[in-house]
Amino acid sequence: MQFRLEHQDPGSKARSGTIQTAHGEIQTPIFMPVGTVASVKAVHQRELAEDIKAQIILGNTYHLYLRPGTDILNRAGGLHQFMNWQKPILTDSGGYQVYSLANNRKITEEGVAFKSHIDGSKHFFSPEKSMEIQRHIGADIIMAFDECPPYPSTYQYARESMDMTHRWLQRCGEWLKENDPLYGFGQSLFPIVQGSTYKDFRVKSAETIAEFGADGNAIGGLSVGEPAEEMYAMSEIVCDVLPHDKPRYLMGVGTPANILENIALGVDMFDCVMPTRNGRNGMIFTSEGIINIKNKKWEDDFGPLDPNGPTFVDSQYSKAYLRHLFAANEYLGRQIASVHNLGFYLWLTGEARKQIEAGTFASWKNIMVEKLQRRL
Amino acid sequence: MQFRLEHQDPGSKARSGTIQTAHGEIQTPIFMPVGTVASVKAVHQRELAEDIKAQIILGNTYHLYLRPGTDILNRAGGLHQFMNWQKPILTDSGGYQVYSLANNRKITEEGVAFKSHIDGSKHFFSPEKSMEIQRHIGADIIMAFDECPPYPSTYQYARESMDMTHRWLQRCGEWLKENDPLYGFGQSLFPIVQGSTYKDFRVKSAETIAEFGADGNAIGGLSVGEPAEEMYAMSEIVCDVLPHDKPRYLMGVGTPANILENIALGVDMFDCVMPTRNGRNGMIFTSEGIINIKNKKWEDDFGPLDPNGPTFVDSQYSKAYLRHLFAANEYLGRQIASVHNLGFYLWLTGEARKQIEAGTFASWKNIMVEKLQRRL
Repeated sequence: MQFRLEHQDPGSKARSGTIQTAHGEIQTPIFMPVGTVASVKAVHQRELAEDIKAQIILGNTYHLYLRPGTDILNRAGGLHQFMNWQKPILTDSGGYQVYSLANNRKITEEGVAFKSHIDGSKHFFSPEKSMEIQRHIGADIIMAFDECPPYPSTYQYARESMDMTHRWLQRCGEWLKENDPLYGFGQSLFPIVQGSTYKDFRVKSAETIAEFGADGNAIGGLSVGEPAEEMYAMSEIVCDVLPHDKPRYLMGVGTPANILENIALGVDMFDCVMPTRNGRNGMIFTSEGIINIKNKKWEDDFGPLDPNGPTFVDSQYSKAYLRHLFAANEYLGRQIASVHNLGFYLWLTGEARKQIEAGTFASWKNIMVEKLQRRL
Repeated sequence: MQFRLEHQDPGSKARSGTIQTAHGEIQTPIFMPVGTVASVKAVHQRELAEDIKAQIILGNTYHLYLRPGTDILNRAGGLHQFMNWQKPILTDSGGYQVYSLANNRKITEEGVAFKSHIDGSKHFFSPEKSMEIQRHIGADIIMAFDECPPYPSTYQYARESMDMTHRWLQRCGEWLKENDPLYGFGQSLFPIVQGSTYKDFRVKSAETIAEFGADGNAIGGLSVGEPAEEMYAMSEIVCDVLPHDKPRYLMGVGTPANILENIALGVDMFDCVMPTRNGRNGMIFTSEGIINIKNKKWEDDFGPLDPNGPTFVDSQYSKAYLRHLFAANEYLGRQIASVHNLGFYLWLTGEARKQIEAGTFASWKNIMVEKLQRRL
């Protein structure tokens, strides 16, 4: 994997670049649709590539490990072949989902014991196990096994958790050195900065992660309930420490406004379930603000979902029609909302890139952030 | 609407033809996907037109009347505009759904009083009301308001019901004479042959319907629980009486084998929820037989759903992948199965047409009917 930094916005820390992987290029800043269990929910792969213009998607190690399982994925030739997605893929480490199991998991220095949310069966993830599973899944970018502390965390918990995350990173690196990729192309490990909302820990963690010398670096443990201002403060501190010539990935963020603010701080990559999950509940993100399509006010609005919308659903379906589909609980409503919202998120990061290239990002961002948060 | 009869199979009563409507041509024999409430479930309109190659779809008057309602449809400029489907549409009369409400409806000479399945609100459909609603929906082909007697029905019930259906047809015709279409194009009324499974009634009803002189004629009251042989017997009797130079539509039928057998008897048009409803439950119809994709045997079958399948889902997704999507209860599984099955049904009627044109339909049909019923 190679990263080429291309433009730097004069009015902010925003930058544009290109990541080269074995499955093609990714132009940053970029949003990565979440394909939890080998499918971006309610969206065909063809729509992802041709309409939404996704350049990379994310898979969840925890879910893929449980279903279809590493054996099936391995016999398929990896996740790219299994789901027929020939562009880049990134997988998380499984850690975040495992911690979310709350009472059904136990964290120790060795790793995390947990029970499956499907059948209650017992499993154990360690840094080594996470690497082994991610080798079998075969994504282009794989994530270190970290602990994501809850918000808020005590100063002491945050430190101990961060230190363990750093030790786990070493174990990930060692396992990967001794175990080659399985499908004839390289996999880049991204380590993850933690440290909760403590500035000194964030600096220390970013320095540790920078020293690791990976192809790219991630910021974890944000967007877990803290105020947006605190998220931005942590993101800024970390971006200032992480190497300039490597892509920076802010995990699990966020709203369209969150994304633009973080691009302004120097983040290059994003993922979030919001466009699909909220879309399935009728929340439509547009360049003019947010629509709750279930609202009766759209009942007879026969205009397009978003006159500037980039995908076929924007020109082919009206707000009144989509509102009807949600009222009648039709599958197609969720499909349209998912394609629209993902298309919008990809448009947004693509437009940010153009503004960075033109040197106009900072002023454009300020106007957009205000518009994006409006309720229409 | 015009119908041009083109070919007649030498070995059966199968025929091919072309129906010309204000929204384009329909090449018969044809299968019509069911778009119950202004959406063919889990399928985009673009996929219907470009991938499945649907030439006409069906809408349900009962469902469209309740949601979005005739007012919204009227303000949208009719159903074609509302759902953005620019090819032909056929609507049923609302009768069949209303009778299905069982204890929540009452049939009299005047019409049918019923309670909505959504909110229990009270409504009344009469022949005139059904015509008025269908004028507002604005389909190219609209159906007469009939009574569909249950199977089995007594001889007396079947006669009284049939006679009322014939009287209701006159009322439909009279209402349409006095009320013009709303959207600048004509709507063709198809009357419906009833008579349960009594041959003498079927002949009498077909004669009555033939005398009405409509642009096309339908056969109702079949595929309601009777044995397939009884369905074929009724279909044959009726086709022999109905005019040769008008399209014949067998309502609500059926399996792929049912469709081929009825084409052999002279039926031109079909609709059924089976490809979509059964598809959403994991039943995949292919040219080699029927697949239950939930079965564990497909878990590691990385071959295509149907090597001869006509749509993108057949070449882009494997059986193992689709099986996984059903196991994980992913939306995309239902989408793929729906596109595949509809594409297959359209392929089947298209292939039947080619065989009729080549004069080889009868022998091809016999081979196919056997293959289509296999469980793979």
